Amino acid sequence: MKPKYLNIKNNTAYIRDINLIDVAKEYKTPLYVFDQYELEDNMKLFVDNFKSSNFNCHTVYASKAFLVPAMCELLVKHGLWMDAVSLGDLYVAYKSGFPMDHIIFHGNNKSKAELEFAVEHNCVIVVDHLEELVLLNNICETNHKNISTMFRVNPGIDAHTHKYIQTATYVSKFGESMFDEVTIDKIMREYVNSKYVKLLGFHSHIGSQIQELEPFLLNVSKMLSFSKQIIDKYNYQLTSVNFGGGFGIPYVQNDKPLNKELTASKMVELINSLGKEIGFVPSDVYIEPGRSIVGNSCVTLYTCGDFKHTYGDKNYQFIDGGMTDNIRPALYSAEYSCDIANKMNNEKDTICDIAGKCCESGDIIIYNALIQKPEPNDILMVYATGAYNYSMASNYNNMLKPAVVFLSDNPKVVARRETLDDLLKLFK
Amino acid sequence: MKPKYLNIKNNTAYIRDINLIDVAKEYKTPLYVFDQYELEDNMKLFVDNFKSSNFNCHTVYASKAFLVPAMCELLVKHGLWMDAVSLGDLYVAYKSGFPMDHIIFHGNNKSKAELEFAVEHNCVIVVDHLEELVLLNNICETNHKNISTMFRVNPGIDAHTHKYIQTATYVSKFGESMFDEVTIDKIMREYVNSKYVKLLGFHSHIGSQIQELEPFLLNVSKMLSFSKQIIDKYNYQLTSVNFGGGFGIPYVQNDKPLNKELTASKMVELINSLGKEIGFVPSDVYIEPGRSIVGNSCVTLYTCGDFKHTYGDKNYQFIDGGMTDNIRPALYSAEYSCDIANKMNNEKDTICDIAGKCCESGDIIIYNALIQKPEPNDILMVYATGAYNYSMASNYNNMLKPAVVFLSDNPKVVARRETLDDLLKLFK
Repeated sequence: MKPKYLNIKNNTAYIRDINLIDVAKEYKTPLYVFDQYELEDNMKLFVDNFKSSNFNCHTVYASKAFLVPAMCELLVKHGLWMDAVSLGDLYVAYKSGFPMDHIIFHGNNKSKAELEFAVEHNCVIVVDHLEELVLLNNICETNHKNISTMFRVNPGIDAHTHKYIQTATYVSKFGESMFDEVTIDKIMREYVNSKYVKLLGFHSHIGSQIQELEPFLLNVSKMLSFSKQIIDKYNYQLTSVNFGGGFGIPYVQNDKPLNKELTASKMVELINSLGKEIGFVPSDVYIEPGRSIVGNSCVTLYTCGDFKHTYGDKNYQFIDGGMTDNIRPALYSAEYSCDIANKMNNEKDTICDIAGKCCESGDIIIYNALIQKPEPNDILMVYATGAYNYSMASNYNNMLKPAVVFLSDNPKVVARRETLDDLLKLFK
Repeated sequence: MKPKYLNIKNNTAYIRDINLIDVAKEYKTPLYVFDQYELEDNMKLFVDNFKSSNFNCHTVYASKAFLVPAMCELLVKHGLWMDAVSLGDLYVAYKSGFPMDHIIFHGNNKSKAELEFAVEHNCVIVVDHLEELVLLNNICETNHKNISTMFRVNPGIDAHTHKYIQTATYVSKFGESMFDEVTIDKIMREYVNSKYVKLLGFHSHIGSQIQELEPFLLNVSKMLSFSKQIIDKYNYQLTSVNFGGGFGIPYVQNDKPLNKELTASKMVELINSLGKEIGFVPSDVYIEPGRSIVGNSCVTLYTCGDFKHTYGDKNYQFIDGGMTDNIRPALYSAEYSCDIANKMNNEKDTICDIAGKCCESGDIIIYNALIQKPEPNDILMVYATGAYNYSMASNYNNMLKPAVVFLSDNPKVVARRETLDDLLKLFK
């Protein structure tokens, strides 16, 4: 789906008053172009709608979607927390000056080094399973350090997304089922007996790219009830609930977009009403949007190469990037849409696969795209590439990672393009 | 499948006399460990079996499978050529001192800069389509430079491989169908009229991971006949045929391995006999094995984290790497096999998914693996990871690219492990 502030002037795509063809010329292609205004709008949207006068609401940006230091600055500006999943994430955040006690640290297999770093910097750790809790307790004991944690549970909600991104079934690699009383009992006993590791509350994540309100409300209901049971059974005062992410975005015309404002505000409403009803209104609640903050606010600009009509009647429009800058179509059969940025008002009369330049038949960014008649050196603009594109980029075929530009009043390079010499850096 | 020189001593995996547990301790995990002996054996296998006293046979290593400077050195040592697919590949080869006129340069969408670099360094260019040929001719004319090329055609052979790696159907993004007389005619006229661009012959590539001899022989037959037709029709003296790659390797027990020796020697035999019969014995023939040279000669060593038994009865063994160092299971549903390197003789009594540490449910390296009972800090060894693992590695989740070690008489680091500071290099 198109960026919020996309304009057309003289047949050319603009974001607000910035000519994207000029941007492509100046910074070369392939190029990730984020509209900083839309990015900040999305941050504000969550902060403004996920709020309450009765408890503290925290919007935690899931950094695995896209993380650069400039992103950290925006999160700080708008008061968002950050969700990190590796020592690398923690390190990038730390070096970007992000307040480390506003980081929620995830992962199914955290290493000792990762846990030590997170403890040292007072991150909130989402514990995945009992053995990790025991290890964490040992680390804290050794360092005479208290730490706040959540524990990840699976509420057993099937949110009907791609099988790779279902995360809350009873067989998930993440967390433990909230229905597994024996395991939960062991975990709670460990918490009850720990002098160092505090359980703030439980964390859940019911999937990704969810487009309906209902699963989110069902999750609120399950998590509040479960928390209340635990409080009563173990006489352990929980303060928090983390409802995770999964807020879907529209990629193509037929995607029915989730109403993010409504979802956030309805969640708060339910936390309040149901919380009062069952006798547990947490003092701190968390959601973890990632994709829904960055996804739609970016376009990738490519330069068109040749157009190929095959003997078998399939057409290809070649571009100067591909699966190395956007692996989602190959990995998840993800769909994208596009336009030719210098022919915005031309009739869309050409059906073709948008094919990358990798030496691999599966390197197709869009199958059967309907586009304006393309010519070499046209600028092809693929929409909604902000999430899981740059963060999953590779050097397959020794392709170079594209630059990333943020458009505020002026374009600003927030990640420079890789150079040929960068390819050699690990070989010296 | 296990490396050729894998030994077991004291319940521990060795490659020849090198203890892999010691290697894991010294170089840390995750770690790609190549046996240089097996690598060189595979190079020799092709060179020794793809040879003839009647014409020159060239084994061209497809570098997209795995490329580091140390690999270039081995190729030179054994007289192999190299297949490159981007300016990045060309640059790595150039900086590694590889003889550039022994490079075959591929790609469906080569840029002007790439073609110029290839022309400057006298690479053999595999032209993909007419417009590229015109551009190449212009570049050569401008620089008063002659260049040798091949032209990629699709022989229409369906080699029954994964749909992503079928490359010779009539709708392929690569090359042109050899049955498309109109297009081939335009191309041949361009060649006939060019003073600078010489056509050595045609190139084909019928797929990847092919396990039967027949498609290779069918391809030889189709390519020789097609070449002879072109020679006669255009009175253009071709000298070469390039039969591409696609030589399959065994990944798991049930894979029936292609007999590479037999395939290479049968191809030579057929080139000779059929060539004489139809009146075209080329002076130079080429094959392009990649995976079949590197694939089986590498194992990835991981350190085991916790073992998780879920409420839904699925088991997970967590490892310290995952889809960032081996994306093939998620991308192609590729299968791998593994052992616990410090428990080689123990009974295999545990069924579990080998799960990476990425924050993604699809980060599974092996589904339903049957392994020795694992414990934390065991070293899990995944077999046959030499091809398309390191070359497709990413920094998703800000994971660090593992180091690569070659074992000859002693271990040698040929690509160092990424550091946390490497993650920041594009942000300065």
